[in-house]
Amino acid sequence: MTCKVIVQKGTFADSLAIVGRAVGSHSHLPILSNVLLNKDEGQLRLSATDLTMGVTLWMDANMDGELGITLPAKTLTDVVNSLIEPEIVFSVNGKPEASLKCGSYKGVVKGVEASEFPAIPVFDFSDGVSLEVNILREMILKTAFAASLDDSRPVLTGVLLNIDGKSISMVATDGFRLAICKAELPVALSKKQLNIPASTLKEVVRILGATKASQITLCLPAAGSQLAMRCENVQIVSQLIDGKFPDYQAILPKGYKTRTVIGAVDLLKACKQAGIIAREGSNVVRFHLKPGIDQTGKVQLLSESDETGASEIELDATVEGQELEIAFNVKFLQDGLEAISTRNVVIEINAHNTPAIIRSAEEESFLYVLMPMHIDGK
Amino acid sequence: MTCKVIVQKGTFADSLAIVGRAVGSHSHLPILSNVLLNKDEGQLRLSATDLTMGVTLWMDANMDGELGITLPAKTLTDVVNSLIEPEIVFSVNGKPEASLKCGSYKGVVKGVEASEFPAIPVFDFSDGVSLEVNILREMILKTAFAASLDDSRPVLTGVLLNIDGKSISMVATDGFRLAICKAELPVALSKKQLNIPASTLKEVVRILGATKASQITLCLPAAGSQLAMRCENVQIVSQLIDGKFPDYQAILPKGYKTRTVIGAVDLLKACKQAGIIAREGSNVVRFHLKPGIDQTGKVQLLSESDETGASEIELDATVEGQELEIAFNVKFLQDGLEAISTRNVVIEINAHNTPAIIRSAEEESFLYVLMPMHIDGK
Repeated sequence: MTCKVIVQKGTFADSLAIVGRAVGSHSHLPILSNVLLNKDEGQLRLSATDLTMGVTLWMDANMDGELGITLPAKTLTDVVNSLIEPEIVFSVNGKPEASLKCGSYKGVVKGVEASEFPAIPVFDFSDGVSLEVNILREMILKTAFAASLDDSRPVLTGVLLNIDGKSISMVATDGFRLAICKAELPVALSKKQLNIPASTLKEVVRILGATKASQITLCLPAAGSQLAMRCENVQIVSQLIDGKFPDYQAILPKGYKTRTVIGAVDLLKACKQAGIIAREGSNVVRFHLKPGIDQTGKVQLLSESDETGASEIELDATVEGQELEIAFNVKFLQDGLEAISTRNVVIEINAHNTPAIIRSAEEESFLYVLMPMHIDGK
Repeated sequence: MTCKVIVQKGTFADSLAIVGRAVGSHSHLPILSNVLLNKDEGQLRLSATDLTMGVTLWMDANMDGELGITLPAKTLTDVVNSLIEPEIVFSVNGKPEASLKCGSYKGVVKGVEASEFPAIPVFDFSDGVSLEVNILREMILKTAFAASLDDSRPVLTGVLLNIDGKSISMVATDGFRLAICKAELPVALSKKQLNIPASTLKEVVRILGATKASQITLCLPAAGSQLAMRCENVQIVSQLIDGKFPDYQAILPKGYKTRTVIGAVDLLKACKQAGIIAREGSNVVRFHLKPGIDQTGKVQLLSESDETGASEIELDATVEGQELEIAFNVKFLQDGLEAISTRNVVIEINAHNTPAIIRSAEEESFLYVLMPMHIDGK
């Protein structure tokens, strides 16, 4: 197979950066460190996969001949980024290696036969669901952080995508906290649940940022174990996680005995202050909620460490219902607060040993459920 | 000892950042993770040391009582940075701990008695040598990178400061390359040589950047093993390295058989390009120098790796004398080129197995000597 390809340096560099997000870093399969280059309907097609996620991108190129080769992603990307002139001439001549010419630079990058690369599945997006990129990005950013990083319960390392009529939501939990983000679809769809690896979704956010696209099409599998997404010239394929996701509806607390409305920015700053002492001791911060209407209530954050010292921060708040003392992992509370961008947050609690609900006071798309921590002597 | 101190949050945070540069990170002596706070002639004095380098800073504060305490630098710095209001009230009351109040924040940071902290030496700067900060910074930046990171020959981990009449210079070498940077003093001084740890000097550059001062005073020890520097309200004390520094004058090559004048930016870019393939094999890049006057000569950079591939970059240059092929560690060459900010560099070489001289074509303060690498079959 012989091919001569002329590509624009800038486009090629940007494309390699996007496809490179799927390149495995500590792979036991060396071929997964490579990127696959093919000719596909007159375009240059780049693909990479770590077997959980695959990214394929099509870009314009002047191509003469047929192309099928894999090249080490890091070397190829570094060489392309180092080149200065705008046009790269790239040629393959039978052997599994590519010659690159650009201005005064001539190089050879050694690769591996294309036949050794995992097959790239092809999807039909004509029946796909079109979503605004902003909505998908927001749902991912507000939930994926709450998924577990611990592989011992794989089902919790994913984010559950729920579609039911015009309603779409994402849910993630690591057993200590739960994040839900909801949105509305332009058209009603049949009910479906998919558990997508949170690691894939975090990469999807980065890729969406690089493409600047406004719409993304999801190809939902009828059966099958893969989800495919297409965003302009980029296709992302993700494996799905098998197994029963926890029945999170059953965990959601009903009602409350103490309800606090407090400034989101002030509470987040106070959490960071309290976290400095708390980090020496499992991030435990005690919250003392003292009732009072119209900002005459108080929220005290208390942290203590035998080694480091202590801190106490008092904030004004509106606190309805019973006075209460409850302890949280302050890092987990911070994560939830960072997902809320409105002025005030609401915290609803039944008791010091039951989960709390944290959400915006001004809008309803995001809900965070946080388990309390045990306090000595309670 | 009881003391109440009122400090401006911004000044306190900036001061802790500067003093914090001397805090030991993996110290076997936990007290070295602390910063010492004293009252000194009506000012608040902060000190830290890792036993190689000590930094002391004096700042304005409203102080009532006597102060002497050490507090963990990281906790104190993080707490101060997290505070929001402009004024911090800081008090110590007999125990080795400090109370901090700022707006709605109240905290206690536990520390250790001041008596356990290493003594802070006091220097008399009235006979000191005043230097422009820019000159000192440039001398450090152009030499300290070439000092050895390997503790097995401590003398090479330092930068040699030479003073002789009105001439001042710094020299560093790790045995593979040597960097010399010279400057002129406003007044003549008696001959002196000090070997200063390169690690201290790198911190000095950071501290100088934070103080924005234009002059620095050096207190050169008559005998003694310490160098003290004073820059506005900051004093830096460094241990000196004992032992005989190599006779670098003897190493400097005399004359040349091949002399190349080449664009500095182009050569640096070409080194980075060649380095991508070369990093797989000890960073060896072969340089082929082909004579020609007025930019009709050529410099070829050749790199090869059995695993990754090969690259060849050809640059126009003025090459006088004999045609030559010589190999360098391209990372070391890059380091030297990065210390040259003029348009053209000169490379002077006698033979493929003798050191090369690299310097600016336009100014003479910096000189870099680079050992060649062995090429198979030569």
